[in-house]
Amino acid sequence: MAETAPETAPLPPRRRGRPPKVAAPGGGAARLGRPPLMADPRAEILRQAAQLFAQKGYVESSLNELAAAMNYSKGAIYNYFSSKQEIYDAIIIFTLTGLYETAAKAVNEADPPVERLRQFMMAHARFLADNYDCFVTMLVGFSGMANSGLKDDALALRDAHEGLLRRILQDGVADGSFREVSAAMTGRAVLSLLSWMVRWFKPDGGKSAEEVAQEYHDLLVRGLMA
Amino acid sequence: MAETAPETAPLPPRRRGRPPKVAAPGGGAARLGRPPLMADPRAEILRQAAQLFAQKGYVESSLNELAAAMNYSKGAIYNYFSSKQEIYDAIIIFTLTGLYETAAKAVNEADPPVERLRQFMMAHARFLADNYDCFVTMLVGFSGMANSGLKDDALALRDAHEGLLRRILQDGVADGSFREVSAAMTGRAVLSLLSWMVRWFKPDGGKSAEEVAQEYHDLLVRGLMA
Repeated sequence: MAETAPETAPLPPRRRGRPPKVAAPGGGAARLGRPPLMADPRAEILRQAAQLFAQKGYVESSLNELAAAMNYSKGAIYNYFSSKQEIYDAIIIFTLTGLYETAAKAVNEADPPVERLRQFMMAHARFLADNYDCFVTMLVGFSGMANSGLKDDALALRDAHEGLLRRILQDGVADGSFREVSAAMTGRAVLSLLSWMVRWFKPDGGKSAEEVAQEYHDLLVRGLMA
Repeated sequence: MAETAPETAPLPPRRRGRPPKVAAPGGGAARLGRPPLMADPRAEILRQAAQLFAQKGYVESSLNELAAAMNYSKGAIYNYFSSKQEIYDAIIIFTLTGLYETAAKAVNEADPPVERLRQFMMAHARFLADNYDCFVTMLVGFSGMANSGLKDDALALRDAHEGLLRRILQDGVADGSFREVSAAMTGRAVLSLLSWMVRWFKPDGGKSAEEVAQEYHDLLVRGLMA
């Protein structure tokens, strides 16, 4: 699974049990005079929708605006998604899938826990920076997901990501490199540091996401005391 | 200033340069057959509005709903606020004022930095738990504030709160009790841990906010290494 992890650009989540849709020939995009150049229109819709939701908020965004921003017809979007809500849900699933898979791929089980913790934190921060609009959209809350099956998927993905982190922390306690800390509490702290980046980090200015993650890792591992 | 800090219940922010409005006799509340029993109707409006915004989102909430929830007429609310946006802005100012003043009051300058950091974190977490709906409302973003003067006030309050924290960290570095960490980066980490509580902490269940803050303080101060 980890081999297919997206690292930089948004990729569409796969629906379970059915293959992803492909661009319908003669769809709305063609009608607007543009050939379907995009390699993955579904992914592109998610990317542009996340940008719109992040800027205007979910409630105040419309499929008309999304279509206009993409130079699509609204019908072209309906080839891939039946509603704004379905796009929102797909963004959440994409983001959590990519986050987990990116972290799982980055963590090398052969390395000591302190290094694996660094790998996890760097990968999480990098994926957040690379998919910033998706994280802003997600911050609005996946209590907002309409499809309860997808909501269960989202919770499972979140748990998988947190589980990966907790195992690193438990391994560190077990091999004596970490103090006897609670993996639940410490994992929560690590994810809080990284998650709050969506509120202040700017992908295009100042420190890179990796530099931030590196500093947080150093702080968590070494602590404040002289 | 710190003597007037609200510690548990929401209090209304004072407008600069003019006294707070008081209940107008014969206002809408009276028309609905209820005497103006509330000690501070303005504070009560903010409290109930924050609850509504936290549950339904700002965009999807209406003053009609707010009035109905309070058993007020809409006119009674207009005695205190001219719009939903003005209520939103007032919630942000109230929350940031209370947060800063509560922390400033809790920090005892005579104590060593490690203890002052604990006091700051406990006070922040407690104020968040006591005003949870206000923090959920604020999470939507004070980019959403309409009054640019109040937005400047909000940024100044946020900076004051962060400044208080940074001074504690700088004092700790200066007196040799903390390592040579960056006060900006470490302050950001402390506030990230506390701020993200709005996404997972439940005021009525499990650990108290103070217990969480205590655990985070211990983790930050001692670090992970055995």
